[in-house]
Formats: sequence, C-alpha cells, structure tokens
Amino acid sequence: MAFTERDVISVLQKIFATADPRLSVAIGDDAAVVATNSQSIITSDMAVEDVHFKLEWSSAFDIGRKITAANVADILSMGGKCDYLTASVALTGEETLQWIENLARGMKHEADLAGALIVGGDIARGPKIVISMTAVGHSQSPILRSGAQIGDGIYLSSLTGWSAAGLELLTREISINSELAEKALSEFSAPTLDYATNFAQATAMADVSDSILVQAEQISVASGVQLALDESLIAAAPEFEELSQIASELKVDVMQWILAGGEDHALLATGMNLPGVRIGSVVAGSGVTGMERKMTPVSWSHF
Amino acid sequence: MAFTERDVISVLQKIFATADPRLSVAIGDDAAVVATNSQSIITSDMAVEDVHFKLEWSSAFDIGRKITAANVADILSMGGKCDYLTASVALTGEETLQWIENLARGMKHEADLAGALIVGGDIARGPKIVISMTAVGHSQSPILRSGAQIGDGIYLSSLTGWSAAGLELLTREISINSELAEKALSEFSAPTLDYATNFAQATAMADVSDSILVQAEQISVASGVQLALDESLIAAAPEFEELSQIASELKVDVMQWILAGGEDHALLATGMNLPGVRIGSVVAGSGVTGMERKMTPVSWSHF
Repeated sequence: MAFTERDVISVLQKIFATADPRLSVAIGDDAAVVATNSQSIITSDMAVEDVHFKLEWSSAFDIGRKITAANVADILSMGGKCDYLTASVALTGEETLQWIENLARGMKHEADLAGALIVGGDIARGPKIVISMTAVGHSQSPILRSGAQIGDGIYLSSLTGWSAAGLELLTREISINSELAEKALSEFSAPTLDYATNFAQATAMADVSDSILVQAEQISVASGVQLALDESLIAAAPEFEELSQIASELKVDVMQWILAGGEDHALLATGMNLPGVRIGSVVAGSGVTGMERKMTPVSWSHF
Repeated sequence: MAFTERDVISVLQKIFATADPRLSVAIGDDAAVVATNSQSIITSDMAVEDVHFKLEWSSAFDIGRKITAANVADILSMGGKCDYLTASVALTGEETLQWIENLARGMKHEADLAGALIVGGDIARGPKIVISMTAVGHSQSPILRSGAQIGDGIYLSSLTGWSAAGLELLTREISINSELAEKALSEFSAPTLDYATNFAQATAMADVSDSILVQAEQISVASGVQLALDESLIAAAPEFEELSQIASELKVDVMQWILAGGEDHALLATGMNLPGVRIGSVVAGSGVTGMERKMTPVSWSHF
C-alpha cells in the first residue's frame, strides 16, 4: 500500500475540517467536544461491501453519500435535525487514497446537505470494506412510530420504488438508455434524502429503508391501529407513471417495487393534511391492508 | 442459521433494557432519544476479527467488554463520563445466538461499570465479525492533549505492559500456569478500565491505547513541551516487579512492553501531584525522552 494510516487521517481531517462554532474540540484529540441540546437523538447504521454496496455498482462518493443518508434519515424520521456524525471504516488496503478521499467527500456532501458535522471516527483494516456511522441530532418533540391516530392520512415524502428499480436494472444487467433508468440507478446508488417535505405535524413517522410494508407494519404495531393503503392514491402519485414505464419494460409489478422494495430512505408519516404523497388512511384495527396482491418484502434485512 | 435478525434484536433488546430516566425513547424506534448536557463528547472505535481480536483467544464476553472499554476510555481520557453507547456489529452467520448474547453481555457489563447505557446500534452480515461502537459522554471541562505545562509530573492511572505480555504469551503459545500470566492474558483479552483514579486536576490527558511512546508524543506535540520519562520511577511502580518476572521468563525487555506495548487503555496524564503512578516530568523542549534504549512502538495501528 502506497500510504499510511497517518496519510488517510490527514486527508480525512482536511475534508472534514470546519470552523463551525458547535464544535469546540475537533478530530485530533481522543474525542470530539460538541454543543448539544438537553435532548439528543442517537442512531447508528452499518454498511458492508458486497452486502449493502458493491464497488462495481457504486462510486466511492455515492457509497459515502448513501451510508450518511441512511444515518441522517433515521434522525429526520424522528422529526429531528442531524447535528453530528462519526464514521468508522474498515478498509482492505486495496483502496487508493483517492477512493478513500472520494468516500469521505461523499459523506461530507450529504452531511452538508443535512447541516451536520463529521466529528470523529476510526479506521481499521478488514477483509471487506465496512462503514459504520453514528448520527447525533435533536428535536423539540421527537415523532415516534407510536403516535398514529385513527382518522390520520398516510403520507410519503416522495414516491418509493426507484431504488428497487435501480437494483433490478443492475442485477439483471439490463442497460436502458433513458433519463428514467438514470434516475433509478442514481436512487439505488445514493438515494436523495428529502430535506424539504415538512412533516413536523406528523403524528407518527418512520424512515422507509426496509420497505413501506415493513415500516407501515411497525407503525401499525407501535400505534395499535390499521394502516389502510390505497393503491389508487399511489397510482395517482407524481412519478408513478415514470416508474411504471420502467416496470413494464422490465415486466415487473410496479407496486412490488413501491411497497416492498426497500432502500429508499423516503419518510413514511401519518397525520392530518400533511404535505407529500398521500397513500392511505389510518383506521381502527391492526396490520397493513389495501394491497390488491399478496406481496413479500424483498429481504433487505441483510442478515 | 438457526435464528433470524429478529431473534438477535429481541435478545439484544432484553440485555440492553433499562428503566433509566435519561433514556426517553429506547431501542425499537428509528433512533434513541436521550438527555444530554449542553456540551457532549463523542468518539467512535472499531474492532475487526483477526485484526483486533481472535475468537480462539477471547470469549465473546471479553470481546464485548474490550471494545466497549476502548470507547469508554476515550471519554475518560477527556476527563469525561460516558453516558451512552451504540453498538453496530457485522456477523458472519457462523455465530450461535449464545455467542451473540455473551458479546452483548460483555458490552453491558462494561457499560454498567462506566454508568453508561447502550441505546442503539445495527446488525449486518459480513465476512468477518466487525464491531463498531460510538460513545457519547460529557465533562464540565474537557481535558485535552494540549494542556501539559512545564513543571508538571507525568502519571499513569496504572502500570501499562500487561496487555503486551498477554499478547506475547498467546502469540508464542507459551503457557505459564501462574496468577501473573492469568492477569496478563486477562488484561489482553479485556483490559480493566480504571474508573477510580481521579485525574480531574490533570492539565493534559490521553488514553494509552497505542502505547505510552505514541500517546506521550501526541501530548508533547499538542502542548509544545517535552515529556521526560524516568525509567527509575517506572521501575519503582507497583506491579513492576510482577511484570518483570514474566518478562524475564519470556526473555523480553519489560520496558518495551510498558512503553511501547499498546492496547492497555490506561490513562496518561500530566499535572501536579496527581494520583496514580508517576513516570516522569514535563520539561521545556520537544518530543519524548528518557528511554535508555531505542524503542519502537509495536504497530498497533492495524492499518
């Protein structure tokens, strides 16, 4: 290997450098010292090479963005704002310094979008690349999975399914030269987190990383209500036509992508008159209903 | 595999369960919600199977303790108290549920000693076991590496070198049936963190995970002073005779273990009249001096 751990740390220190006043002790001491609120939100997410990402499918920049987005999404889904991130990375030693730099730049890019600082981490040697991040954020009043009320609508921050479409294109090695396919591939490689949709009035919220079916079930159980999805509402959603177009080219059920695909990092929320895409209603009962066909979530559990 | 991800999470939820009022949203939602101070200390540390630990050398419980201690030590070395931990683990699928449970119990054991709660994490599949933890703590006035003053003494919370002795016994496959060897092996497998030594009055502090030589150099550079070690002080330290006994049986330079061994998680501090083991003085100049022989830190950088 043409570089040392010190080289890597020096590159990372440069990329993550900040004069942000929230950070009083930066990377370089045993730990970082940061300003926090009286209540903090903490979450961690890990991604493993060839399980969560493949080097031939995604650039280092996109991999960095995606794992950062996955961590930030868990803070957003609590109605919170992400303030700080740490990034620990196991490297095989086969990477170039440029690849590592691009990984860090991807993390920094998404952290900047979130308004968060990368304040620490660790580097280790491993047989495969493993990226583990922790996000610390805050919220005036965290929105849990348990607050859904009968009479609420069910909303998505944006239509899901694009990531599943991208995965399908990659695994079947189908190359469609179109803007739609580009979007699907890009949403798979580095999903766009929605920082704009204001779900502050949501009664319950979850990050749709495992699929709508899985996350709606979690809200249903935690809130003691039934989540009645409505496929006609979904079919009327913006982008549904575009996604359907790819699905029909690939002869795939578009609802399977949308409801059971996973890896989207959209937000699923319940509440009254929320922005975003309405996809159903909260009613008395239990479980998730409204699917015209039986669907099984794609196993994104990675275990 | 005889168990699912849900089984693992259910076991972990039980082990990490707490009624501690600092935790307002526990494991089970997208993220945990915890009480924090206006200033928080954040650090992350990662351990990889066959790089940082070996399954044939350490029990799951000890592996869990050790990586937790490594994270906590970075908070202690800032003069802080560890409040919260997250644990993300890549598992190969070859583990038994009992092994995973023991790993979690080891983490919980050390977290309890530190007064910290394990509030979240992630599980993934990987080719080797990778454990990544993040610690969040607080301190009224963080102690940095940069505060050492000319005239300060240099102190250790306890004598280092035991972990290096344990590693030597294991790698050379030497079995010494004595209490001393037991201590060395146990300090290697799961170093005892010193929660008792009160270094609150220290001017500078660092966690000795890479070795005294490396960490003293870091304090020297950060503070712009020279750290003059004194081997006669070290030789007068409690436990020095015992450690020397193993070293002479193995025909190893005991000072090499103590000064360059690493993986000890003792605290190295500078200040006036501190408790612990005095090993030298802060003087004008630069670098680390006082070694009678040239020593090279064992490469514990794992990269």
